[in-house]
Amino acid sequence: MLLADLPTPQVLIDRRRLLENISRVQALATAAGVALRPHSKTHKSPAIAQWQIERGAAGICCAKVGEAEVMAAAGIGDIRLAYPVNPSNAARVLALMDRVSLSIVVDHLAVAQAWSELMDRADRVLDVLVKVDVGFHRCGIDPATPAALDFVRSIDSLRGLNLRGLLSHAGHGYQATTENELEVIACRESQILTDLRDRAAEAGIALEEISVGATPTLRFITRQRGVTELRPGNYVYFDRTQLALGAAALDTCALTVLATVVSKPANDRVILDCGSKTLTSDLSRGFEPTPGYGLVLNPDATAIDPTFAIERLSEEHATVRTSDGTPLQPGDRVRILPNHACVVVNMVDEVLLVEGDQVIERLPVAARGKIA
Amino acid sequence: MLLADLPTPQVLIDRRRLLENISRVQALATAAGVALRPHSKTHKSPAIAQWQIERGAAGICCAKVGEAEVMAAAGIGDIRLAYPVNPSNAARVLALMDRVSLSIVVDHLAVAQAWSELMDRADRVLDVLVKVDVGFHRCGIDPATPAALDFVRSIDSLRGLNLRGLLSHAGHGYQATTENELEVIACRESQILTDLRDRAAEAGIALEEISVGATPTLRFITRQRGVTELRPGNYVYFDRTQLALGAAALDTCALTVLATVVSKPANDRVILDCGSKTLTSDLSRGFEPTPGYGLVLNPDATAIDPTFAIERLSEEHATVRTSDGTPLQPGDRVRILPNHACVVVNMVDEVLLVEGDQVIERLPVAARGKIA
Repeated sequence: MLLADLPTPQVLIDRRRLLENISRVQALATAAGVALRPHSKTHKSPAIAQWQIERGAAGICCAKVGEAEVMAAAGIGDIRLAYPVNPSNAARVLALMDRVSLSIVVDHLAVAQAWSELMDRADRVLDVLVKVDVGFHRCGIDPATPAALDFVRSIDSLRGLNLRGLLSHAGHGYQATTENELEVIACRESQILTDLRDRAAEAGIALEEISVGATPTLRFITRQRGVTELRPGNYVYFDRTQLALGAAALDTCALTVLATVVSKPANDRVILDCGSKTLTSDLSRGFEPTPGYGLVLNPDATAIDPTFAIERLSEEHATVRTSDGTPLQPGDRVRILPNHACVVVNMVDEVLLVEGDQVIERLPVAARGKIA
Repeated sequence: MLLADLPTPQVLIDRRRLLENISRVQALATAAGVALRPHSKTHKSPAIAQWQIERGAAGICCAKVGEAEVMAAAGIGDIRLAYPVNPSNAARVLALMDRVSLSIVVDHLAVAQAWSELMDRADRVLDVLVKVDVGFHRCGIDPATPAALDFVRSIDSLRGLNLRGLLSHAGHGYQATTENELEVIACRESQILTDLRDRAAEAGIALEEISVGATPTLRFITRQRGVTELRPGNYVYFDRTQLALGAAALDTCALTVLATVVSKPANDRVILDCGSKTLTSDLSRGFEPTPGYGLVLNPDATAIDPTFAIERLSEEHATVRTSDGTPLQPGDRVRILPNHACVVVNMVDEVLLVEGDQVIERLPVAARGKIA
């Protein structure tokens, strides 16, 4: 099928760019001597997870038990729930442990104790990593205090849990305003983790794994001494935010949204059929200010068309300001690089793998919309 | 099933509040002598559409052909595509016309001409309404110019199209900062439409329908003289934005998100398992500034808990600032009134109808994720 014959809006994935991204980041991890364990939140596709593993990934990450269930059912054998999974999901976690090598993260003693009791009672052992706050101030223990080592010691002592190591996410990298700031964040991240690992070693606790992961900082992996695992997600597709953070080039961005001009109420305004229920209201981050809801590209997605600004989204409309007298007319198609690929994929039941102007394959977003 | 036993996050619908909202707005429309044609974008549920029709609605609106296909398959017989549907979808529109009474909106002459040719060739007649820009500056013809009447005249003269009337959406009501401003927007909307209707009448063109619709302005329907149809969508559920625009009271808000505390990394910070892939990044609108990503309610959703601020969303985390020493602990549940109900429903495959602490029914969001 030709792109020109598709109903819109559609989420398109450039197959060649996708596979090149998977291979390039795998090569980077391999060269740095670290395991790559991609986060599947971006694609939510067992097929893409399998391609990542075939090209060298050690396994995958999921955020939700429901996503891990879909990936396990599709044959993925090694899954890390990079999330402080609540013990109310114990029955499903135990069922998953029967099928795959599973690990979760912990950052709260009462939660870890509950998991410990559940596992001990089931006569099972659950692999866990301690989540460490490296500056994002979301989840994770505060590494700067003596309590951090106490926490590691407590987890290590709990029956039914096997403490594998430390894990972090430098989500504050998305707020960086310069390349240098990003590099400092990456270097501090590994420093914080290896410091805590060394303190644990002095206390007689061997922490095997030091796991980091975020697409903006992955290019500094060779500066992150002591790291054993990299967990980026977004790099398979990239997006406007990664472009604006220097993590991607336009010709590596694999995901675009194909949209149709549905109205042209004024000479300098066109309306597209991709609103917040397609592009989402996520704003772009980046070193420079990045207003609007995505970038309009030229037809083959090789250049940004600077004459368009996606100023406003309604649920099913994008209001686009353009130069006076744009040749675009209702019925014409445009391709958009969205601000944030992960949330765009999460809006659709399938994405379309494309090569040039041809649709090659329909890929279900099979792990979308799962609970817990 | 009890709410306490549900995995989270879940979108809950208070069944009583939903049915009361449907009946109350129906009564308002009936008393004002106008037809109610709810927009189904909010619930995307054929069951709820059926309840609206059983209680007196004249039909429904959809934004997408794919949504109309789902509604038609479920037996809804009268559907208005309140959207400038592109003629590239002609085959599906013709198929829909075989099953339901269908109408679309037009605001561009070349598009209307294309529809005219398609319908004429198929020996069919498509009901259309002219979309009028009443100040939102999204779609719609500019009513202030002589060209507006020329446009109406042109549409009226096109073979294969049956011009039913004028249609508008006062989406700029969401930017209002006072009750008075909203009322002025509503009054101007009907004034603009009836002025154009009267000019058309003088030119010998009878426009039967004057259709308006947006939840914030629906309470001014008795001030909107000449209006024949009301098309609100959000009123079935309401949300924080409607509350902040005076369109809803808390005890009419039917939709909440049930979430679990998954971490408590600091005394004044808890993490919930509902991120932007549940609540979305949509901000609230309202008369006063409304920061954050929703309001935390008390357990039975009857009052706002002012001690919580949902400061930041990641894809699967909400970072909540709370008063020092909140009793909330990991595993505890909270209910959240989201900023925007329509986009929250669009994230899930089903919503749960609840009464008190009981789940009564699972309702598929059957028209979610449809293309075009």
